[in-house]
Amino acid sequence: MTAEQFATRHIGPGPDDERRMLETVGYGSIDELMDAAIPEVIRWHGTLDLPDPATEAEALAELRALAGRNTVAVSMIGLGYHGTHTPAVIRRNVLEDPAWYTAYTPYQPEISQGRLEALLNFQTMVTDLTGLATANASMLDEGTAAAEAMTLARRASKSKSPVYVVDADALPQTIAVIGSRAEPLGIEVRVLDLDAEELPGEFFGLHLQYPGASGAVRDHAPLVEAAHAAGALVTVAADLLALTLLRPPGEIGADIAAGTTQRFGVPMGFGGPHAGYLAVRSGLERMLPGRLVGVSKDADGNPAYRLALQTREQHIRREKATSNICTAQVLLAVMAGMYAVYHGPDGLRAIAGRTHGMAVRLAAALRAGGVEVTDVPFFDTVSAVVPGRAAEVVAAAAGRGVNLRLVDADRVGVSCDETTTDAHLAAVCAAFGVAGPTGEAGSRLPEALARTSEFLTHPVFNTHHSETAMLRYLRRLADFDYALDRGMIPLGSCTMKLNATTEMEPVSWAEFAHIHPFAPAEQTAGYREMIGQLEGWLAELTGYDAVSVQPNAGSQGELAGLLAIRAYHRDRGEGHRDVCLIPSSAHGTNAASAVMAGMRVVVVACDAEGNVDLVDLDAKIDKHRDALAAIMVTYPSTHGVYETGIAQLCAKVHDAGGQVYVDGANLNALVGFAKPGRFGADVSHLNLHKTFCIPHGGGGPGVGPVAVRAHLAPFLPGDPGGAHVDGKPAISAARYGSTGILPIPWAYLRMMGASGLTRATGVAVLAANYVAARLRNHFPVLYAGNKGLVAHECILDLRPLTKATGVSVDDVAKRLIDYGFHAPTMSFPVAGTLMVEPTESEDLAELDRFCEAMIAIRAEIDKVGAGEWPAGDNPLANAPHTAAMVSGDEWPHPYPRSVGAYPAGVDRLGKYWPPVRRIDGAYGDRNLVCSCPSPEAFES
Amino acid sequence: MTAEQFATRHIGPGPDDERRMLETVGYGSIDELMDAAIPEVIRWHGTLDLPDPATEAEALAELRALAGRNTVAVSMIGLGYHGTHTPAVIRRNVLEDPAWYTAYTPYQPEISQGRLEALLNFQTMVTDLTGLATANASMLDEGTAAAEAMTLARRASKSKSPVYVVDADALPQTIAVIGSRAEPLGIEVRVLDLDAEELPGEFFGLHLQYPGASGAVRDHAPLVEAAHAAGALVTVAADLLALTLLRPPGEIGADIAAGTTQRFGVPMGFGGPHAGYLAVRSGLERMLPGRLVGVSKDADGNPAYRLALQTREQHIRREKATSNICTAQVLLAVMAGMYAVYHGPDGLRAIAGRTHGMAVRLAAALRAGGVEVTDVPFFDTVSAVVPGRAAEVVAAAAGRGVNLRLVDADRVGVSCDETTTDAHLAAVCAAFGVAGPTGEAGSRLPEALARTSEFLTHPVFNTHHSETAMLRYLRRLADFDYALDRGMIPLGSCTMKLNATTEMEPVSWAEFAHIHPFAPAEQTAGYREMIGQLEGWLAELTGYDAVSVQPNAGSQGELAGLLAIRAYHRDRGEGHRDVCLIPSSAHGTNAASAVMAGMRVVVVACDAEGNVDLVDLDAKIDKHRDALAAIMVTYPSTHGVYETGIAQLCAKVHDAGGQVYVDGANLNALVGFAKPGRFGADVSHLNLHKTFCIPHGGGGPGVGPVAVRAHLAPFLPGDPGGAHVDGKPAISAARYGSTGILPIPWAYLRMMGASGLTRATGVAVLAANYVAARLRNHFPVLYAGNKGLVAHECILDLRPLTKATGVSVDDVAKRLIDYGFHAPTMSFPVAGTLMVEPTESEDLAELDRFCEAMIAIRAEIDKVGAGEWPAGDNPLANAPHTAAMVSGDEWPHPYPRSVGAYPAGVDRLGKYWPPVRRIDGAYGDRNLVCSCPSPEAFES
Repeated sequence: MTAEQFATRHIGPGPDDERRMLETVGYGSIDELMDAAIPEVIRWHGTLDLPDPATEAEALAELRALAGRNTVAVSMIGLGYHGTHTPAVIRRNVLEDPAWYTAYTPYQPEISQGRLEALLNFQTMVTDLTGLATANASMLDEGTAAAEAMTLARRASKSKSPVYVVDADALPQTIAVIGSRAEPLGIEVRVLDLDAEELPGEFFGLHLQYPGASGAVRDHAPLVEAAHAAGALVTVAADLLALTLLRPPGEIGADIAAGTTQRFGVPMGFGGPHAGYLAVRSGLERMLPGRLVGVSKDADGNPAYRLALQTREQHIRREKATSNICTAQVLLAVMAGMYAVYHGPDGLRAIAGRTHGMAVRLAAALRAGGVEVTDVPFFDTVSAVVPGRAAEVVAAAAGRGVNLRLVDADRVGVSCDETTTDAHLAAVCAAFGVAGPTGEAGSRLPEALARTSEFLTHPVFNTHHSETAMLRYLRRLADFDYALDRGMIPLGSCTMKLNATTEMEPVSWAEFAHIHPFAPAEQTAGYREMIGQLEGWLAELTGYDAVSVQPNAGSQGELAGLLAIRAYHRDRGEGHRDVCLIPSSAHGTNAASAVMAGMRVVVVACDAEGNVDLVDLDAKIDKHRDALAAIMVTYPSTHGVYETGIAQLCAKVHDAGGQVYVDGANLNALVGFAKPGRFGADVSHLNLHKTFCIPHGGGGPGVGPVAVRAHLAPFLPGDPGGAHVDGKPAISAARYGSTGILPIPWAYLRMMGASGLTRATGVAVLAANYVAARLRNHFPVLYAGNKGLVAHECILDLRPLTKATGVSVDDVAKRLIDYGFHAPTMSFPVAGTLMVEPTESEDLAELDRFCEAMIAIRAEIDKVGAGEWPAGDNPLANAPHTAAMVSGDEWPHPYPRSVGAYPAGVDRLGKYWPPVRRIDGAYGDRNLVCSCPSPEAFES
Repeated sequence: MTAEQFATRHIGPGPDDERRMLETVGYGSIDELMDAAIPEVIRWHGTLDLPDPATEAEALAELRALAGRNTVAVSMIGLGYHGTHTPAVIRRNVLEDPAWYTAYTPYQPEISQGRLEALLNFQTMVTDLTGLATANASMLDEGTAAAEAMTLARRASKSKSPVYVVDADALPQTIAVIGSRAEPLGIEVRVLDLDAEELPGEFFGLHLQYPGASGAVRDHAPLVEAAHAAGALVTVAADLLALTLLRPPGEIGADIAAGTTQRFGVPMGFGGPHAGYLAVRSGLERMLPGRLVGVSKDADGNPAYRLALQTREQHIRREKATSNICTAQVLLAVMAGMYAVYHGPDGLRAIAGRTHGMAVRLAAALRAGGVEVTDVPFFDTVSAVVPGRAAEVVAAAAGRGVNLRLVDADRVGVSCDETTTDAHLAAVCAAFGVAGPTGEAGSRLPEALARTSEFLTHPVFNTHHSETAMLRYLRRLADFDYALDRGMIPLGSCTMKLNATTEMEPVSWAEFAHIHPFAPAEQTAGYREMIGQLEGWLAELTGYDAVSVQPNAGSQGELAGLLAIRAYHRDRGEGHRDVCLIPSSAHGTNAASAVMAGMRVVVVACDAEGNVDLVDLDAKIDKHRDALAAIMVTYPSTHGVYETGIAQLCAKVHDAGGQVYVDGANLNALVGFAKPGRFGADVSHLNLHKTFCIPHGGGGPGVGPVAVRAHLAPFLPGDPGGAHVDGKPAISAARYGSTGILPIPWAYLRMMGASGLTRATGVAVLAANYVAARLRNHFPVLYAGNKGLVAHECILDLRPLTKATGVSVDDVAKRLIDYGFHAPTMSFPVAGTLMVEPTESEDLAELDRFCEAMIAIRAEIDKVGAGEWPAGDNPLANAPHTAAMVSGDEWPHPYPRSVGAYPAGVDRLGKYWPPVRRIDGAYGDRNLVCSCPSPEAFES
């Protein structure tokens, strides 16, 4: 390979590195290593049928050509997707800044204070605008947020009714997602025109849209009262921009608010990604799904942020879970929160007022021209009645470069937003055949619904209003954090590899960013061609027959896959099959997804080597043979091992009439060497934010395509909205999910090609085995497969050391920060261990730096064990060390400051300092604070 | 103004801030303040005739439309400008990263180690590739680098001859710039065809091009020998990419190498900016113009970088100067150096080999098709002979999207580069009417000229070859530095204001980036329209009649302006006028520029208030009346004061037949309130990297347009190359200089409009007076104008405190680092003082943070004065404090660590730590090392 070939940039180790690593592992070549590591029974020996690898310049040129086949029109379709101006300072310094986008989920809060503060801003923004008590740190989109609100309502409601009432003026895609989620759970959804139809006698929840999809702004207070009287909970799906002018849900007694923050500076991206939100009234906060940032304190008693109430997460609840959400939309939530920080309350009010004013002027012009406009209060959307002419008007507008909403043959919807100009209104009027607007706009919002309460009064929303101030605030927060741009993040099961700039750049292009998900097909030819290619390549890599990129997180891919299995069985008249076998080592999401798909979870034991216990599997199959729907396994296993029994396992399940679901989380160990669709699996979800280089963004966006064999293809997700609603499952609110970031995996695959991808897998496995080989004598490596080899990750067992010395896995993880590392995965899949996944992108220098840090830490543990350092006061117990701590006037510790600050091998000049000391998570959970603390809290 | 208006984002203080600042200064409004501050005699009371301010979205849309009128063709014109792939990781994390582009010149080396290391890489790259001993940290372009080489040769040569011989195969624009520079200095340039013509008997220098503009690769060794025999120095203008394959100038005895590094990953930008280079053999290093980075050591004895040999700079040499260069092309030099870091020696060799191979294949195909190809060795450029058909071939190629070089009616030049593809070669062949290339390429370089020596062997060029490694290296270096993205840089005379993202984004667009300066006019309509608008707006702001944006630094603008004055006098038959009056307070560049323009410098004294002494002025005018060419003054003065005598001064000089040159460095205090072209000046240069928001980039790029009244307009710079060579002065190598960054000031002016610009000036003056008012009781403010007001900056006099306590201005500057600031301008224009220019972009919180730091430092000085802390060991003397220092195991200082580390008011969480302690500049000058030190040097 030459320097021109992207694979040499993506893969960290060069030829010399590779040679030295192979020597350590004891193999002559990567081929030999892979032959030894991968069971022959699953091995695939062909060459991937992909186009020859493109150079970075070629890939960008091809993407430019694809982008050129999309048309950027003025979007006035509305329906939850709006034009917005991303402030350039936020685009460049968040969306395009590796310090933000290469960050991991903030599970190590001491090195994540920047994004945690940004998320706290987001939560505060949502609670202030909705008038509710607590918001989480984002949902995947409005549709799934609404569906989560439904299950939350069911859990919280005292009503035993299975009925969930949905406003007929809700967004169509929201209704579709709610419907798909409700069915397997036995929830009966009733879509009612609440202006005309009565509420049923019994129901557990009510979903209202505010303003409605039609644009109508209604007084929902009476409905809320009626629902509460029936023991039901009320969710209001509210537009946050409108809430700057309108009385918020919390002030009319709503229990839950759900929605999107897309129009807060996040481009539409043909459907996503953007951050959904979910907020609840006081009393429901401990039922909130997803991640919640809260305020706690560090070892010095200073305020510090971390994820609160983590015990709510599905990895703890497993089969009792009511939500499977893990990855959220952190990067986009950060952008939306920063949009509020930059504009502040006055700025947002001004944007909302201007948007409303445009709609008012448009309505006046239409009326003046004799067009009937639905006579209801509205915020940004005008509903025009043009009997028999709607399609013609929409086409005329499209001809002028403006997309409108075709409601039906007689009605056209026109939504204004902050990008709307007089020229746009003039074009719309021309399409209707009337004169353009004249005169000034005024508010036409009903006085009784006007917002009177303050919002965003916290200083953070009232300080950073110049670009200079904003830039510095973003830099300050980014500097708090440790992301891939500083060093290795060896997180087992998360595949923190390079997110190449060439993959990222097209995400900012207007032709990908500014496309409405319901834009006419002729405007999205480039996107659809790209998606078709990507789905085809993913099918080739995995050996499946069909792929859908709709699921916008791995969890959603799991649900989509299980729903396909469910539908398949029902289609064959075997709808009674509802047992899902899940090995005890599985990621908690698996069980949660199975529950959401209406299945019963049955756990299969693992043996001492960490493999699925085939004897127990037989027993469980025997017991549930007739009810067996599926087995869900991860391959390589969550223990990072190529289990040899996988083919046998698949056969056993198939023989019993079950389907095999292989979780694709660990696909980075298979690409080019084995295809799940060929070795026995029927369905997998992939994680494009793992193997396929979408950056983690601090906890999202993710993309979790579902890939199936041909017999399951008819049951893949359909189109939840737009012109092509087809009644198939709606997994996310948009046909192609987080479409706006699909250029990333497209570019990765296009530039790597078969040779690059195969080499990447080999180097990833080599790197894991290199780390295992170097560390084996210092920490036991817990599981291994063929010839003692691991797959792409290895588990370091700290339990014997913990038992002997009291030094915990936490201590080691925090001490690694002092050495300049993000900790590996802690206590998953085995409590008391660290799971290390180096990936192919780390070069030998970085691998060695990590190994040497771990070896040095082992020596430190031994000092504690030997009593040289007291158990409660040593560099491990006190880690991480902040600059303030090691430069304090007092130093009461029994080891020198230099040992705390600069352990052996640390880059003294480039030392990363965490801003806070170790955080007390339990304190924050007892004293839950999930919005921005007052500045006084930080006074020392 | 609303949030939509860019001015509210650019200007830091909001209405509340402004009110509080006015209260402190004692005025009721900015208008009142400006009325009091600006002498009525220069005041202009109109409204600027500019388009209404555009929003950021509107400005971007207009620039998109302009960009759309440029055509990006495949460029095979050559002549020193080549297509190149900017590695995306470098584009995003250098060119588009505020941490790099908002940095200032590294005069405070302790907080500039990142860019100093990057520049040392650049210098090492140049010396390695040229085979010479020492290179500087960049020149403005190849043409000016060659001109500087000429004057260096003249200074170093023992020959008394005025003759400078230039290779006829040199780049035409280089010949033009050399010619323009030579004439006023009395140098006689002889352009000779060295294949056919003999060298003259006596000459002081010889300029060779390698490879020649025609593409020819000649063995220059005999010419070097002959020149040396004549006592002349030899400059080789060499292509660095070719030098990876060809014997370098240093190995054939050349004294100097000059050239461009554009093709090392820097887009052509219609002419610039990119980094020129200049390298010299051992013995000439102390004569190098421009900035030179060298290795020294810090207070702990650790290696540390800083600008070496600063005493060579013109601000010291003044009227003895032979160069006026200050601003160079740091940002672009960083990019080029990083390109070498990323590719390494093997990668560069591969790129060169591939480029050469393309040219070889093209030549073979042309010959095979019967086209005559000049039969000389070549690297990347093929010279084809097509009698009478050249224009037709060039047009045919243009029709296929490829630009070729029309040499003359019979000859076409075709240059290959790293972006050349088979498809490009096929298009070229088709244009010639021959079949495309077939078969493999091989080297056709003469064995005797092949490079045999190693280069780029330092580890830095052999380590960061994966994108992950490169990203981290860039982040690590950026983290060392303090730029505007961290906090205020209150540098008097440098106007470190916001460089808005919206201004910066278009610089990356292909339609601006990938245009060759000699592209056909029909491909550059958008650029030329934009430049026309920008020149028009600048004329409107300054009250002049004509503007040229060609000068690519302020220094070059000065030279252009003085050359216009010179030409004007000569045109009127008053060529004997050669005296340039310069006040003693002037920036050293002024005098240097005058010398370069062939003038004699006569210094005019200043009075005790820092104003030009009008009595001395009279005396000097009397003495030199008949020879008086010009006066050069800065307004407001370099003391930051609106001098009231300016109109009188202009009149006196005009009366004596002289011209008035007003240095526009301080234009930020005038825009909207006074126009130099209206209050008496004939010519000014502006600094688009000061008042007009081009970022400083760590020491360039800059743009220094020259603006003149109508009578000087005929003498503005012309076109130095391309199709329109017109014999006018060639100030830089390209018609519009650093064209690629002109979208920045265009966007600034377009978004600010008359109201925003005027308000910016008012707030800048308010901010300076606010700082003066707050600090006056702690540090004397040295000069003031009307009513005790300063203009846009103020001088804090430390001399009395230094005298009383020994605490120096250096100590204060370094201590400010501990408080989280970049120091103000040190000891300019008055030794022992600090000059503070806050600009309009800093909000009140940041201004107050600065004032409070200065007040706290004053209290610290008092403690030293009171003997509480010893003179040699106190927080000022030991500043800046590194993290390593304050966390050291020993603390031998008589003040607590916390006082060193976290002085009052410092952001404890976001604390910026410099990587090194105070640097010993003199040590490095005595032990000059100007290339990368070995890694062992950093072992502690």
